[in-house]
Amino acid sequence: MGNRYSPLAFAWALMGVCTAGHAAEGMWTLDNLPRAAWKAQHGFEPDAAWLSHVRAAAVRVGGCSGSLVSANGLVMTNHHCVTRCLAELSTPQRPVKAGGFLAQGPEQELPCAGLEVLQLQAERDVTAEVQAATRGLQGEAFQKAEDAARARVSRECQQDQAATRRCDVTVLYRGGQYVLHQYERYTDVRLTWVPEDAIAAFGGDPDNFNFPRWCLDVAMLRLWRNGQPVKTPTHFRVQPLGPQPGELLLVPGHPGQTQRSLTVAQLERLRERLATQDIPALSESRGLLHLLTQRGEPTRTWALQSLSGTENGLKVLQGQLQALFSPSLWAVKRQQEQALQAHVAGQPALRERVGNPWADIERAQQVRRELELAHSLIAEGRAFAAPHFQTARTLLRGVVERTKPDEQRLREFSESALPGVVRRLKAASPMDLSFERERLEWSLTRMRSLLGPDHPVVQRVLGSQSPAQLATELISRSRLHEPAERSRLWEGGVPVVEASRDPFIELARRIEPEARALRDRFEAEVQAVERQAAQRLAIAKFDRDGRSRYPDATGTLRLSHGVLRGWREGSNEVPTHTTVAGLKARQTGAAPFALPSSWLSSTGIRLADDIPFNFVTDHDIIGGNSGSPMINRQGEWVGLVFDGNRHSLGGSFFYDGVANRAVSVHPMAILRSLQQVYEGKALAQELMGPARQ
Amino acid sequence: MGNRYSPLAFAWALMGVCTAGHAAEGMWTLDNLPRAAWKAQHGFEPDAAWLSHVRAAAVRVGGCSGSLVSANGLVMTNHHCVTRCLAELSTPQRPVKAGGFLAQGPEQELPCAGLEVLQLQAERDVTAEVQAATRGLQGEAFQKAEDAARARVSRECQQDQAATRRCDVTVLYRGGQYVLHQYERYTDVRLTWVPEDAIAAFGGDPDNFNFPRWCLDVAMLRLWRNGQPVKTPTHFRVQPLGPQPGELLLVPGHPGQTQRSLTVAQLERLRERLATQDIPALSESRGLLHLLTQRGEPTRTWALQSLSGTENGLKVLQGQLQALFSPSLWAVKRQQEQALQAHVAGQPALRERVGNPWADIERAQQVRRELELAHSLIAEGRAFAAPHFQTARTLLRGVVERTKPDEQRLREFSESALPGVVRRLKAASPMDLSFERERLEWSLTRMRSLLGPDHPVVQRVLGSQSPAQLATELISRSRLHEPAERSRLWEGGVPVVEASRDPFIELARRIEPEARALRDRFEAEVQAVERQAAQRLAIAKFDRDGRSRYPDATGTLRLSHGVLRGWREGSNEVPTHTTVAGLKARQTGAAPFALPSSWLSSTGIRLADDIPFNFVTDHDIIGGNSGSPMINRQGEWVGLVFDGNRHSLGGSFFYDGVANRAVSVHPMAILRSLQQVYEGKALAQELMGPARQ
Repeated sequence: MGNRYSPLAFAWALMGVCTAGHAAEGMWTLDNLPRAAWKAQHGFEPDAAWLSHVRAAAVRVGGCSGSLVSANGLVMTNHHCVTRCLAELSTPQRPVKAGGFLAQGPEQELPCAGLEVLQLQAERDVTAEVQAATRGLQGEAFQKAEDAARARVSRECQQDQAATRRCDVTVLYRGGQYVLHQYERYTDVRLTWVPEDAIAAFGGDPDNFNFPRWCLDVAMLRLWRNGQPVKTPTHFRVQPLGPQPGELLLVPGHPGQTQRSLTVAQLERLRERLATQDIPALSESRGLLHLLTQRGEPTRTWALQSLSGTENGLKVLQGQLQALFSPSLWAVKRQQEQALQAHVAGQPALRERVGNPWADIERAQQVRRELELAHSLIAEGRAFAAPHFQTARTLLRGVVERTKPDEQRLREFSESALPGVVRRLKAASPMDLSFERERLEWSLTRMRSLLGPDHPVVQRVLGSQSPAQLATELISRSRLHEPAERSRLWEGGVPVVEASRDPFIELARRIEPEARALRDRFEAEVQAVERQAAQRLAIAKFDRDGRSRYPDATGTLRLSHGVLRGWREGSNEVPTHTTVAGLKARQTGAAPFALPSSWLSSTGIRLADDIPFNFVTDHDIIGGNSGSPMINRQGEWVGLVFDGNRHSLGGSFFYDGVANRAVSVHPMAILRSLQQVYEGKALAQELMGPARQ
Repeated sequence: MGNRYSPLAFAWALMGVCTAGHAAEGMWTLDNLPRAAWKAQHGFEPDAAWLSHVRAAAVRVGGCSGSLVSANGLVMTNHHCVTRCLAELSTPQRPVKAGGFLAQGPEQELPCAGLEVLQLQAERDVTAEVQAATRGLQGEAFQKAEDAARARVSRECQQDQAATRRCDVTVLYRGGQYVLHQYERYTDVRLTWVPEDAIAAFGGDPDNFNFPRWCLDVAMLRLWRNGQPVKTPTHFRVQPLGPQPGELLLVPGHPGQTQRSLTVAQLERLRERLATQDIPALSESRGLLHLLTQRGEPTRTWALQSLSGTENGLKVLQGQLQALFSPSLWAVKRQQEQALQAHVAGQPALRERVGNPWADIERAQQVRRELELAHSLIAEGRAFAAPHFQTARTLLRGVVERTKPDEQRLREFSESALPGVVRRLKAASPMDLSFERERLEWSLTRMRSLLGPDHPVVQRVLGSQSPAQLATELISRSRLHEPAERSRLWEGGVPVVEASRDPFIELARRIEPEARALRDRFEAEVQAVERQAAQRLAIAKFDRDGRSRYPDATGTLRLSHGVLRGWREGSNEVPTHTTVAGLKARQTGAAPFALPSSWLSSTGIRLADDIPFNFVTDHDIIGGNSGSPMINRQGEWVGLVFDGNRHSLGGSFFYDGVANRAVSVHPMAILRSLQQVYEGKALAQELMGPARQ
């Protein structure tokens, strides 16, 4: 029963959360670190220079994290963070994804189109400005005012900056704080090195979120600008010895999203949604993709790529659902909710100010229950699984929205978001039309089954056609997979898009009234209500706790702390490290447990048995932290975070210090494989930097 | 949002249950009918002759229901109840399933191998005998004693009877009552008529559990014995006019299983299991099968067959899960549980006798939570989706078990169950090995993902092979798909099975210790505890309610009552009937909304627009009722039950009189299509019987 939570460990962990919080808990913003605890437990007090070094060297890589690891713009992240780029770069002659890639010198590096690296330059608290604009407002009015205030602050920031800067206003503490982040944006990002898929994701889905583990889940990228590698004097220096037992280890990274401050009613609805919508959808998709991987190329490669994302997503959601079926979780969440309610009830002024946000949120869950299936299929477009559909909708809406004043636009077309929209529309986006046809047919079939053949949108979409007929027609007649056609439509604006007879544009146009009505109602009656109520909850928590808590993850820079630590799984003690010896024992020759040929010599594996491979620590991380550097108090790079164990999946809702573990690649595995498996001595040397004093 | 429960209707329905019970609620045993209510509401008092006619004419057909409808052994049931037979009979030259079949005379009828029709001959209450054997026993001892007492009663009955008789002891009221059923068993069952798949299941999965509806879901079989059709003077006579508005309609049938008396703890665990195990498994399977239907023949046909079963099962479980996420369901179930607890608490003697069954059941749910995934995959064998595996396990265990005294055997090899085991082993069971290989590879992949690659059973099963390699090897080397080989092993007994190197037998042998350990623990710590506690709950309910309640469905003969009744769906009134005119409007030419060519003439559909097709009534039915006759108080056959609407799926847990509806084929649709679409005038005449006086 290796894949189930141990109920006992789980209960302990929650008791921990309940009383004092576990030592390693927290995804802290850099302006509000648990300094007292670090000092008391580890004697560590980061100074401004240390923090500013971390801010500059810890970067965001697409939806993942990464770090600068040389003076010449070298960025380290995970292989699994750049698989889309690898798939796009792969050709039969140069199978980058399956066969790996190493540039011998910067001139051989391959551009990852569409991949963006962000480096934080400055942050500023703008809570007062945003809250002034929303004070006293409810529901939709609140949301519109908040959106407009955030857009205005971003735009004003953007106007002051170079074109390579990006300004975002992030909502922290679900409305308790607003922070303006200014990033330097790098869009010419090139691939320097990746090992083969088979060693990067050794163990595949079966080993995903497991430990012991043997993955060389690493990718090296380089930042370029003006035809030159970017100079990055501020970077992390690699410490080949890796993390030491007992020492404080810090993970600066960009955790994507946690839901630790949801109310009981929100968690209940989330559980229902995962169980009735999201997990069944991903499960069906998995079955479909499993068989599509048996097709010929190129369908096989696209299916494998999509399958690995689907299986990963499925494990994440299954882990979350498992946590949401744990009686102890509910006991703790109910108790925490009641405690906050009691605090508010006891403070008349506070009660006056925050009202009853729990009741408002609970009412919004009824609307979720009523709308969420149709919203997901029609308004979010999951009924139309080919990328053409989202492109069509972007064109249809974007050419209209961009002519409006910024504050009246749909938020995905705001002035600050527009450059990203245009870049994605114009980017080359290779795809396999046969693969897309299959996915589209399946998603249309599923829509008809879920909404029923008499649903007006189903009737409008299918008419008298079967899903198979419609999918074939859409894919064979559309030209939206061609960047030139997308550019033509975008540049042409409203008249050209209106005149288009592209079948995906016609489809998107046909269901636009229902899609917009669903979106509008969902935003007004669900999202706006939840956001406004969440802000009142944040006010109540600040009133009670001050700034002693960390906010839910938001994809912005955070610091997690921890130490090397195994855990107890049933009757087994799971050790902190794996080594090459274990890899030798685990490989069977059959995927996903087959080593690539580069790793094998006539006598076995090219690396010595005792080289450390992966290791576990008790850091509080979540999806988005993939690719994060792990550093020691000297600011030296000692590991590459790439996964959590399965107990970490409940981390969306709470931190379980007993069993929640982060999994990282050891620097020695990276250096030795560069030196002994790949022809990467120069790259290893670049990582090690100039000889140390 | 057509596929969601209307929360309001749902709440009303439950209020009904809560107070007086809805008029049409109940799957009543024939010895305990709601006579007073029938008399008061409909002036109907069935006499002994009426009931004995119903007992003889309402039969069980495999896992479905059916009825005798002529004096010459003609049995009417649903097309979807015999699809396995149709698939096995289909050849490229004679595509029975896709193309339909009509025997012109009994000599052309085709045998449905393995299909069994049971006709109830007698029932006897044996509660005293069984309860005497179990009194005072707990857990495993209780279960063993109950099993042994049931086996003994069955065996003694069997010894007194002809070989064509079958004796079963059924547990009613979850242990409150035990009833011995004696059936006449017909094993030579031949196919007389089925229409094409495309009209039998018109609307396919999208329309399944929906209404309005247009399905000719009918199959005619004939009972044979000693080379002759069986004479069946007692049968239902067809009333072509069908059901009349307002008249009392009775459905004698064999509802399979309901779970209305589960405790709150059991319902909670069931919800978790559906959400985390069963629905994800079926969803994955659906995605896989969706693509397998695109393969060439014969894989395509097997995949379509399997897909339709999977989609049906998925809709059932999704409907159940939906009900289990309804706050009103929990409110009612909790209230009912507390009321019974209060009753017990108030009666010291009763309290002494029944103790705290709720607490025992709750503890058993913890064990379910711990074991149920591995139990399902390993002990139930879902990790090994090819039928070869269950055959291998049957051989491995059966040759040993059959040498033991009856009461010491695993129950599936008891003396009374053995003839069925042998029949299934020796039956021709056509299959497509390429289809089975795909399913097996998928199920092995899934097992590894769910249990993890380090689980001892996963290691023992896969060794260093991938699921694909192992599946290919098992399917290509095994001979267990050959009936002759299965017979050879069964006849050879222990030495021959022990010597077998068949790879499926070796696989089953290799995991037998873990499989048996899981089964034993599950039976002792879950099933035995639940059964014994459920009996105490039944005692408490009898103490309070007497025999005023009906027992959960058990696959035995029940009577449901109701009337023609539409319902309100959102803002729509759903009418009671559909007609051919609606079929004409719904057909698109694309499956599953394409009519077979036999239905089309140069001017349209061969039947007149106003012929009634399907209709809805408010009967309380559930899976297993498929194929049930609907009769009027004169005992005339007026409809063929084939489905429920989607609101009926929560019927597993409660009856919702506001929206729960049964869906039936109108007799006119059957008679007219026989006469005007198929060359079935003689069969229509047989159905109508000799001219009426």
